[in-house]
Amino acid sequence: MSFSPLIRQLIDALRILPGVGQKTAQRMALQMLERDRSGALRLAQALTRAMEGVGYCRCCRTLSEDELCPQCSDPRRDDALLCVVEGPMDVFAVEQTGYRGRYFVLKGHLSPLDGLGPEAIGIPELEARIGQGAFAEVILATNPTVEGEATAHYIAQMLAPRGLTVSRIAHGVPLGGELELVDGGTLAHAMAGRRPMGC
Amino acid sequence: MSFSPLIRQLIDALRILPGVGQKTAQRMALQMLERDRSGALRLAQALTRAMEGVGYCRCCRTLSEDELCPQCSDPRRDDALLCVVEGPMDVFAVEQTGYRGRYFVLKGHLSPLDGLGPEAIGIPELEARIGQGAFAEVILATNPTVEGEATAHYIAQMLAPRGLTVSRIAHGVPLGGELELVDGGTLAHAMAGRRPMGC
Repeated sequence: MSFSPLIRQLIDALRILPGVGQKTAQRMALQMLERDRSGALRLAQALTRAMEGVGYCRCCRTLSEDELCPQCSDPRRDDALLCVVEGPMDVFAVEQTGYRGRYFVLKGHLSPLDGLGPEAIGIPELEARIGQGAFAEVILATNPTVEGEATAHYIAQMLAPRGLTVSRIAHGVPLGGELELVDGGTLAHAMAGRRPMGC
Repeated sequence: MSFSPLIRQLIDALRILPGVGQKTAQRMALQMLERDRSGALRLAQALTRAMEGVGYCRCCRTLSEDELCPQCSDPRRDDALLCVVEGPMDVFAVEQTGYRGRYFVLKGHLSPLDGLGPEAIGIPELEARIGQGAFAEVILATNPTVEGEATAHYIAQMLAPRGLTVSRIAHGVPLGGELELVDGGTLAHAMAGRRPMGC
């Protein structure tokens, strides 16, 4: 079977999307062609504009089309709090918790085997940012993976001489679900991190 | 939380893709911005070209950028066989079986409740196509759903006076899997359609 060339090129191009394989790409391409051509043209325009217009925030280094992202340019946020995350998607996740301090976005995590040292992920820029600001607390919200933990430890050690509070987001059992399904490591963290209950 | 406007517009535009909700669209948008901007620009171009360039094959009515699709323009295919399907994606599925006859692509199936009668799905065009050709057999490969069956029956009745063989793809148990997982209706079809085994 051969799709005609333009359809084939569209199917191939759709496969750059994360989680989209050959079959999904075919379905996407044919569905757009049959049902929503104007939506597809709007998507093409949005893609072009975003890829050409979006850069990085000068201050927190998240993705932003302006020199300062909405979080950095908002004067009502708490200038004493800095939350360090691995990527722009994490900013979105932390925002949903109601956090209203500032952010710093690393370029991923330390990964010496892949040649990603402190410079590659933006640790010097983080140090500079902390030097400029008047932060009372730095919250390390890197991922709860081996690399994320190592990155958090590295930053905590680096910040130790500065005399500000450096905290790490808590590990424990997630809300919902059942205790017997939680892995041993997580449960051990939840036990060690237990807290007195108010009545 | 607010993404900057261009990113937000991109996320909204991605949601026209089938199976893509808010969260997947966010991941797609940020991943393209962070890792593959040139691929995203190629995708934008492929989208524009396909939406503006692809029409319908004059003969079988599948999606095609040329007046005749690859299947209709191939002189080596069997002109005595016509396979009737519900959409362009089905042409692709049937091609993979090794079928090398001709096709006719309906616009879906009959659905009186939605106001889709014979004219809406292209039955008159199918009749005209069969009148022009010299087909010995018409294979009805509409979906094995209630609407697909009804559509197949309608076409079979319409073609009855013409004296050509009209066949329907077989219903039965799919390959792989276990008999106890097959639904009763399918198994009943498989029993009724049993065939003598060669040794």
